[in-house]
Amino acid sequence: MKCFTKSVLLGLSLLCCKVNGAIIIDEKGNKYFREEEYGLPSAIMPIEKELFSCQTDFQEIEVFKSKHLGNVLVLDGVIQLSQGDNFAYHEMMVHVPLFAHPNPEKVLIVGGGDGGVLDQVLKHTSVKEVVLCEIDKKVVEVSKQYFSEFAHGFDNERATIKIADAIPYIKAKQNYFDVILIDSTDHVVAETLFGKEFYQDVVQALTADGIVVTQSECLWIDKDFIVDLHKQNKKIFKHTLLYFTLVPSYVDGTSTFSFFSNSYDPFEHIDSERIAQIKGLKYYNEGMHKASFQLPQFVKDALKQADNE
Amino acid sequence: MKCFTKSVLLGLSLLCCKVNGAIIIDEKGNKYFREEEYGLPSAIMPIEKELFSCQTDFQEIEVFKSKHLGNVLVLDGVIQLSQGDNFAYHEMMVHVPLFAHPNPEKVLIVGGGDGGVLDQVLKHTSVKEVVLCEIDKKVVEVSKQYFSEFAHGFDNERATIKIADAIPYIKAKQNYFDVILIDSTDHVVAETLFGKEFYQDVVQALTADGIVVTQSECLWIDKDFIVDLHKQNKKIFKHTLLYFTLVPSYVDGTSTFSFFSNSYDPFEHIDSERIAQIKGLKYYNEGMHKASFQLPQFVKDALKQADNE
Repeated sequence: MKCFTKSVLLGLSLLCCKVNGAIIIDEKGNKYFREEEYGLPSAIMPIEKELFSCQTDFQEIEVFKSKHLGNVLVLDGVIQLSQGDNFAYHEMMVHVPLFAHPNPEKVLIVGGGDGGVLDQVLKHTSVKEVVLCEIDKKVVEVSKQYFSEFAHGFDNERATIKIADAIPYIKAKQNYFDVILIDSTDHVVAETLFGKEFYQDVVQALTADGIVVTQSECLWIDKDFIVDLHKQNKKIFKHTLLYFTLVPSYVDGTSTFSFFSNSYDPFEHIDSERIAQIKGLKYYNEGMHKASFQLPQFVKDALKQADNE
Repeated sequence: MKCFTKSVLLGLSLLCCKVNGAIIIDEKGNKYFREEEYGLPSAIMPIEKELFSCQTDFQEIEVFKSKHLGNVLVLDGVIQLSQGDNFAYHEMMVHVPLFAHPNPEKVLIVGGGDGGVLDQVLKHTSVKEVVLCEIDKKVVEVSKQYFSEFAHGFDNERATIKIADAIPYIKAKQNYFDVILIDSTDHVVAETLFGKEFYQDVVQALTADGIVVTQSECLWIDKDFIVDLHKQNKKIFKHTLLYFTLVPSYVDGTSTFSFFSNSYDPFEHIDSERIAQIKGLKYYNEGMHKASFQLPQFVKDALKQADNE
């Protein structure tokens, strides 16, 4: 992989690259991908084979085959997903808001070029139109090749793929989408997708009873970011709630999502019969839908303190 | 630390020790503790200072100061706890069964020589007697020195500390304990504390309406072990349930607990007023008590399949 500068000394070596990622080789020649530590233990993932690497106008894209979790997609040195555990992220990002909405027909995905969120959205028969707005077409191409088991919704007749910056796209839409799903990279790289100005445009693009869900980073290491987003968006939305899922390939083993709506809370329209129509889910179920909004006390306290400021 | 064999080559080095653990040094001289990978990404934890290491008759004990999570206790190369996130484990192991029981007076802790579980048990004013049965007195001594913020219950007048093998101790008890908490090391090392014979003795040592909770490893990587324990113990107990907590210093970011009782389910005696009497909890709350028993679908499916076998 051209991105990594290598150095091997007598079979005992350590290979470093850029700010966010590194390949380590142990004394037996086993390779590991190590994510930079953000304040907690980092993920270290055994690599079987380096499959792909390139630098686009937007980011560095890498794919490797891991020993235990199948192929892994890395953007700018940060693990985005693996074949082994992506379902825990994609199912919870999609099915919580889509089952919270009584009749989601028009859905927008911001980012999500790997196709995992799109794949889950298309499982809802109520959805008539889903637009995926991804800035980097290379992510779509790479995902079709290395993650074909879920990156296969792009040609669906209900799907429209726009290779474009989502910010002007959303600014031009009025009262259109029932659900907007923001499947961005991390909040440092994709800072503009978490700001007040962006969410003011998002509200305009949503129907009056629309729902927005964004990935909002890890529960333990990104608590301060989560609280800041909550403080910002509770001035914009009536319902501002946090929920989480378990993703072992992320640094602290979790991903959170933030749920925003001016109409629906996440629970009032849950319908067991609608849920039962989607077969083969591996993480989401009605119990997890409700339970995932229950938070450890240290997170509740931090959000409550923000409410009182 | 005498346990680790070191090798440094031109400042670019990798240090390996035994089956379960390793210290890595990067090219800047930063040290990391890396747990062996069990089938998923391993924890890699930056080390500030190696504080203690010794081999006892039972195990290797190590303590290091980590960069972000304070002091870390390692037994036989496996991270047991850190100052930064132990509360998520200790609070959930203790308060779920103690609030599930209407009046816990006599409690047994098997293992738990670090004192973290004892500290949480003593917060319950209903508890008149708590016995801690730890096989390795060195764990208690080391914890008093390096984890004094929670390893301080040993001298409490309600506590009895037995440095002994818990198996004959439990075998000799009849109809005595309201709650038994099994805070063991991992199921490979402490295999006898998970077997059928042990649990048959545990049932005898419990009162008729007693509750047992054991740590039962990580949700993702130890699913097969969890299912086997469930299959074994549902023949012994009326209520056999799994719940989980979030522990970022563990390999997949989770720890599970298995709840067993012939009388109480985990929810029927929850009392908000009793819960409110314990101040300063950082993870446990009534919502998490209930939510932590909700499981991802792939875990539910595995347990259900075991029920049908």
